[in-house]
Amino acid sequence: MKEDSIVFALSANKKLAKKVSEILSIPLGECEIERFADNELMVRCLSNVKDKKVYVIQSTSSPATERIFEILVFADALRNREASEIILILPYYGYSRQDRVARVGEPITAKLVAGLYQSAGVDRVISIDLHTYQIQGFFSCPVTNIETTGLFGDYFRKKFAEDGVNHKDLVVVTPDHGSSLRARDLGSMFDNCSIAFIDKRRPAPNKSEVTAVVGDVRGKVCLIVDDIFDTCGTLNNAVQALFDKGAKEIYACATHAIFSSTNFDKRIKDIVVTDTVEKEVPGVKVLSVASLIADAIVQG
Amino acid sequence: MKEDSIVFALSANKKLAKKVSEILSIPLGECEIERFADNELMVRCLSNVKDKKVYVIQSTSSPATERIFEILVFADALRNREASEIILILPYYGYSRQDRVARVGEPITAKLVAGLYQSAGVDRVISIDLHTYQIQGFFSCPVTNIETTGLFGDYFRKKFAEDGVNHKDLVVVTPDHGSSLRARDLGSMFDNCSIAFIDKRRPAPNKSEVTAVVGDVRGKVCLIVDDIFDTCGTLNNAVQALFDKGAKEIYACATHAIFSSTNFDKRIKDIVVTDTVEKEVPGVKVLSVASLIADAIVQG
Amino acid sequence: MKEDSIVFALSANKKLAKKVSEILSIPLGECEIERFADNELMVRCLSNVKDKKVYVIQSTSSPATERIFEILVFADALRNREASEIILILPYYGYSRQDRVARVGEPITAKLVAGLYQSAGVDRVISIDLHTYQIQGFFSCPVTNIETTGLFGDYFRKKFAEDGVNHKDLVVVTPDHGSSLRARDLGSMFDNCSIAFIDKRRPAPNKSEVTAVVGDVRGKVCLIVDDIFDTCGTLNNAVQALFDKGAKEIYACATHAIFSSTNFDKRIKDIVVTDTVEKEVPGVKVLSVASLIADAIVQG
Amino acid sequence: MKEDSIVFALSANKKLAKKVSEILSIPLGECEIERFADNELMVRCLSNVKDKKVYVIQSTSSPATERIFEILVFADALRNREASEIILILPYYGYSRQDRVARVGEPITAKLVAGLYQSAGVDRVISIDLHTYQIQGFFSCPVTNIETTGLFGDYFRKKFAEDGVNHKDLVVVTPDHGSSLRARDLGSMFDNCSIAFIDKRRPAPNKSEVTAVVGDVRGKVCLIVDDIFDTCGTLNNAVQALFDKGAKEIYACATHAIFSSTNFDKRIKDIVVTDTVEKEVPGVKVLSVASLIADAIVQG
Amino acid sequence: MKEDSIVFALSANKKLAKKVSEILSIPLGECEIERFADNELMVRCLSNVKDKKVYVIQSTSSPATERIFEILVFADALRNREASEIILILPYYGYSRQDRVARVGEPITAKLVAGLYQSAGVDRVISIDLHTYQIQGFFSCPVTNIETTGLFGDYFRKKFAEDGVNHKDLVVVTPDHGSSLRARDLGSMFDNCSIAFIDKRRPAPNKSEVTAVVGDVRGKVCLIVDDIFDTCGTLNNAVQALFDKGAKEIYACATHAIFSSTNFDKRIKDIVVTDTVEKEVPGVKVLSVASLIADAIVQG
Amino acid sequence: MKEDSIVFALSANKKLAKKVSEILSIPLGECEIERFADNELMVRCLSNVKDKKVYVIQSTSSPATERIFEILVFADALRNREASEIILILPYYGYSRQDRVARVGEPITAKLVAGLYQSAGVDRVISIDLHTYQIQGFFSCPVTNIETTGLFGDYFRKKFAEDGVNHKDLVVVTPDHGSSLRARDLGSMFDNCSIAFIDKRRPAPNKSEVTAVVGDVRGKVCLIVDDIFDTCGTLNNAVQALFDKGAKEIYACATHAIFSSTNFDKRIKDIVVTDTVEKEVPGVKVLSVASLIADAIVQG
Repeated sequence: MKEDSIVFALSANKKLAKKVSEILSIPLGECEIERFADNELMVRCLSNVKDKKVYVIQSTSSPATERIFEILVFADALRNREASEIILILPYYGYSRQDRVARVGEPITAKLVAGLYQSAGVDRVISIDLHTYQIQGFFSCPVTNIETTGLFGDYFRKKFAEDGVNHKDLVVVTPDHGSSLRARDLGSMFDNCSIAFIDKRRPAPNKSEVTAVVGDVRGKVCLIVDDIFDTCGTLNNAVQALFDKGAKEIYACATHAIFSSTNFDKRIKDIVVTDTVEKEVPGVKVLSVASLIADAIVQG
Repeated sequence: MKEDSIVFALSANKKLAKKVSEILSIPLGECEIERFADNELMVRCLSNVKDKKVYVIQSTSSPATERIFEILVFADALRNREASEIILILPYYGYSRQDRVARVGEPITAKLVAGLYQSAGVDRVISIDLHTYQIQGFFSCPVTNIETTGLFGDYFRKKFAEDGVNHKDLVVVTPDHGSSLRARDLGSMFDNCSIAFIDKRRPAPNKSEVTAVVGDVRGKVCLIVDDIFDTCGTLNNAVQALFDKGAKEIYACATHAIFSSTNFDKRIKDIVVTDTVEKEVPGVKVLSVASLIADAIVQG
Repeated sequence: MKEDSIVFALSANKKLAKKVSEILSIPLGECEIERFADNELMVRCLSNVKDKKVYVIQSTSSPATERIFEILVFADALRNREASEIILILPYYGYSRQDRVARVGEPITAKLVAGLYQSAGVDRVISIDLHTYQIQGFFSCPVTNIETTGLFGDYFRKKFAEDGVNHKDLVVVTPDHGSSLRARDLGSMFDNCSIAFIDKRRPAPNKSEVTAVVGDVRGKVCLIVDDIFDTCGTLNNAVQALFDKGAKEIYACATHAIFSSTNFDKRIKDIVVTDTVEKEVPGVKVLSVASLIADAIVQG
Repeated sequence: MKEDSIVFALSANKKLAKKVSEILSIPLGECEIERFADNELMVRCLSNVKDKKVYVIQSTSSPATERIFEILVFADALRNREASEIILILPYYGYSRQDRVARVGEPITAKLVAGLYQSAGVDRVISIDLHTYQIQGFFSCPVTNIETTGLFGDYFRKKFAEDGVNHKDLVVVTPDHGSSLRARDLGSMFDNCSIAFIDKRRPAPNKSEVTAVVGDVRGKVCLIVDDIFDTCGTLNNAVQALFDKGAKEIYACATHAIFSSTNFDKRIKDIVVTDTVEKEVPGVKVLSVASLIADAIVQG
Repeated sequence: MKEDSIVFALSANKKLAKKVSEILSIPLGECEIERFADNELMVRCLSNVKDKKVYVIQSTSSPATERIFEILVFADALRNREASEIILILPYYGYSRQDRVARVGEPITAKLVAGLYQSAGVDRVISIDLHTYQIQGFFSCPVTNIETTGLFGDYFRKKFAEDGVNHKDLVVVTPDHGSSLRARDLGSMFDNCSIAFIDKRRPAPNKSEVTAVVGDVRGKVCLIVDDIFDTCGTLNNAVQALFDKGAKEIYACATHAIFSSTNFDKRIKDIVVTDTVEKEVPGVKVLSVASLIADAIVQG
Repeated sequence: MKEDSIVFALSANKKLAKKVSEILSIPLGECEIERFADNELMVRCLSNVKDKKVYVIQSTSSPATERIFEILVFADALRNREASEIILILPYYGYSRQDRVARVGEPITAKLVAGLYQSAGVDRVISIDLHTYQIQGFFSCPVTNIETTGLFGDYFRKKFAEDGVNHKDLVVVTPDHGSSLRARDLGSMFDNCSIAFIDKRRPAPNKSEVTAVVGDVRGKVCLIVDDIFDTCGTLNNAVQALFDKGAKEIYACATHAIFSSTNFDKRIKDIVVTDTVEKEVPGVKVLSVASLIADAIVQG
């Protein structure tokens, strides 16, 4: 496989791409990302990619539009140089939360960008913990969705052993309605733990939203699980609601460290993310997805 | 609009199509569904559809494959007769639960059939309470997803008033992890009600699945909400678990009356569905979606 | 070729697929065909097909719709697992008789399914004795149409030698207007034989259909040739008409043993089909197309 | 319909287009067909076609390639001027006889040109007596195939009445294997006539081709029917064979007057064609298809 | 036309869109452009566009990527709301200078974005003074390219009359090799003027670039014409070279006022642009293209 | 590379294809180009191309339409025989001058044929000195545009050395507005040469076109460069204008020897073309592009 493969990092994940390249001993290609005077983007492919499988690693985290456009422009350049196959690795899939028409007149941007990638020449996609599984179906090409349940499960089993947390005292908590499957999956890593979720809802029309904890957390150790940490509003609401209901200690994890704000509640005992987004936040532990990506490249 | 529009019913929803046709005063077209000796299907369009907007109403409930194929074959016939636009109305979207690769080697059949409809000539789709909202994104044409929250909300507000159920004593319950958003939406119709969900999960690997109630239901009136009643297994498990936890009374509703088995727990005080699937089940109340479909046709 | 190829049988032709796999020493892949409670189909690919050429063998004989759908669903599953190429082998092409708009308002289902196969990911097709040659042109991908003239010619040359039939006494008969080219081609295998055909036609509008023999068969040995034996109505009409006109003995052959009815005229001295459709009918001789398929796979 | 429609004639069928335009009172558009010094073609649309339905009438008879290219280039020009719909009327479909891979390595040119027309912007096709019905399925857009059986039937019923030919003495003859369905269809216009066909076949491998008459023609009036008169070889062979077998008189008709050679056997009592190809041949009667085309435009 | 049409302005050309809307009395639609916390874009269509022709006016000037993405996202929203046709008006076509592979490994971004617009649902394009005419051919849909030669010709004929410039003393100058056709076209507006161009070229490999004036400008009035004023480097070089060669006075015009730098040589007597890009630069005269766009909408 | 590659020559460039085949030691495939009685074309592929990379060499010079059609038909034949990749080598790209809508109602034939090639199955294109670079963008597949600047530069540097022409006395002249970039590029091969161009323009509306020389040529050696020699009108006008302005000697070169007329001005001291078009013209020197094509095949 190695001779005819090459990995490229665009602007978002240079460290992660380097790790993947090293694990698989696939060379890291060279490309040049420039801006003209009027700010137009140019991405030029400097390596020979003729008849090669090309892996492009780029999270479309902020600035999402520019990063998406880097991918599209570069895919066009790769096609011009006659790459045999373009595999796009999106550790974080930008616009994934815009995956349906929530209000009349909205676009489905997560589907739109799927179409754009394919229209620019992408042949296959690898992503990690897609916001909803159904995004696979927005593509007509094969999409591999890597799950990080095992990564976080291994980490927290070890961590809870160190901290003396008994799994029977553990509640895995999902901070909103959309992530209940994640709680179930992560919960399955810990024998006999229970589950809870945070219900944000207006008690009546025209009344303000109220946060309730559904499930029993009194005296328990809570592990909040989400796919994305963004403004920390949802996370911090959950933390407060859990402590209000008598939770003893709170741990938290999410795959994608967007962190538009990093102002998370400091009472969280341990907060863990992955390196799908290249972002260093003091006090946040980072697990690497590099070997998961390498496996997906090799095994499909 | 009326002169250049025509509605067709294939084999699944003749009554519903007739209602829609009457509400909108759009004529009901004629088609002929035949089987050859070797069981091959023929659907022939007998009405003139040249340069008309054609609405085809067909739920792809069991036998799903045959009903899907009726649509495909008929769409081809409509195109041959130069229909200007083919709008497919799928009150129930068969294979909607196969919307992601759950295990390695699986198809994404919900996406596959979206592609088949479009490949056969469908220009636009109207459906009702899609199993997941993201199915909209499986299409490259416009998809309208009609929600029935209002229909059930109106029904149960009146019903609870008759039965003397105070909304404060009400818990809206989702019978599995996938429907938590439905519970939130239906819950928003009743002031100050609370929410609960049923957690089916293995407590540890290799142990058998256990049903737990997350949220407090003791002495409460429970309204179970789901999108589909199929084998009644999930429903009956939920009913038993709720009574075990001290629920006082149980009501239940779902949009799509698949009812592969109709053996639902008879302790349910009131069980309500819609006519997206044409099925009469003794003891089950049916609300009609005809006017919702008519509105969607007119307003998009 | 062998390392990167794999053959799958879906539900219709397990024996034939096994033979092809053995002739070519290509492994037989594993797949799982399931039905959910509501009768929805699931076909799951259990073998690793990443970057392999995949041959899927499936006749779309009755139940044609279900068998077509098996192919579509399985092709989607194969694509998700990153098969490099999907070659569909359709020993019998279901719906091939629906190859034109015979009456206003009809679909062209033979073309429709060609589009569906390709839309689901099929890259190439191999079929046998297509009802009309032009079906090749319904595809935009390459289509190989294997002919069985040689198979039947070899069989009957030997058989006639055994039975003491002189080729000069032989008439190759086509039982309707559509198969006259088959009679010419099979006739070319026997020196100096003659040809006849059965003319089914209304003598005048509003009169009932009459069967006439065009060509001279008195005192002759007749070999009826068709592509499909379905209800046996056409076959039996031909047999009766030929005996009425003084035929001495009648042999018959067709490629595809649909046999919606197996009630063929027992005066036929020898009736021969192939194994494109897996069906055992007492009194019918079966020739195998396995080696013809194997040749087509190797040589294109 | 009239205000937003316009008809264009390219180089092949100016008279026919004028007739169609007059029957329907649709204006005849102006276009300019030029050649540059290096013989490159330019077709320019001089009329305003914005948001109009455009009917382009052009048989792709010899020189077929140039006439096909005229259509493609003009369709591009029409699209640039924003025609709302382009309906291509191909009275004669050039390359229709190349409708399958007869020998390994051949193209399917009839399918290829179907794709070219659509790729250049054609939205719908109307043709007349396609060489094989299946050519409809080579298109993904609607194709209307006009049949001329009624036109010839009316003509010959009147003609035979004038000439005192009793239908019982009539044999409709197809001059080769491919046209047997045409004989059956035209035969159905004359009560109690019979049918025959000409069998051209090698009696044994390496022997030269022999023409045999299948069916009884002694003392009969023969009406030869074909779709195309091209070199007259097939026609003249049939005439000779029929007279050899004792035919009394011979009439002949075909839809498309290609006449690469016009050297037809002068013993034919009456030879009739249509104006799908604009060609005047002394001694050949021409029936016009203009009103059939006009009907197809109006009714689809 | 007016009832079923609607015009939208995205962020770039609100004034121009308003003018076009007023000239044609087509209503201006409402849309909402938002940013989420992580900077992801949302464009929502607030007006009813069902079955309407929608004109979207947006120059993709800096920030080009964001403005292109606004178009793509909004086109998806329009399609979801069932617009019948989406006409994109790009007064300035961003990335138009990236119209070929100048160095190995480059993308053809001008073609790429053409594909993206169409993939997002755009049906037709109107643009103004495309950098190269051939960009029309990057689209498969109709593209109208409005030329401003007349606008500038009218302006300068009047201006030269006021300033007493005799056309015989006028030289129209193109500041680089790519715009020589513009000089010819604008030159044709002034009787007997002459033409010159600026030749920027390395006199020998590894020597620095030199600016030469080709053509005679001594004592002449020069009118520099270009399509884009961007950094003003090319413009100022030309001005200096022309004065060095004895030019008497210099006027300058260009269609698109990108002005990444506005530091143009103040010796230019009159500098004129259009409002394709909404930018006010002191000392620069602006001509409006609104009525040219209105004409193109009406006449195609 | 060699085992799985094969080169075909159609009718236009048999000598060039043979040279390329020899340089790369890739076998030359066999094909058969026939005409039927009605002049329809048949191109049959006689070599085995299954799973091979197929290079088809064909300039679409006059008769352009027939040569384009040969390519389309042959590509279809190659696809039917399962070629893995079809690379079309167009040494001369016919219809390249029709690359934009110059007057309302024109087609963009250069783009149209790009679409036809791809629709017939071409996967990649190699061409030489495209009339405009932007034609690359008319394709969605990779296009390599080989430039001949080096070929002509090498030739004329040697030639000028022999003839004692000092580069300082050299003016590279472009004979019309469209080729100014070619003059700059070829000029860069000769130290310190200057540049001029011929301005053909109407001095005022309704006056006849006048040819002016822009730039100083008095006493100079002129090298006229163009992409195509067609009627020689442009060339001869340039020669006359240059001598009128005092040019001392004139050389001329162009890549493509269309030569619809070969009546070039005999005062040209040396006139040079390449073998992209297979045409022998007395007095014209031909340089071969075979090794440039071979390089492009190997390196992309």
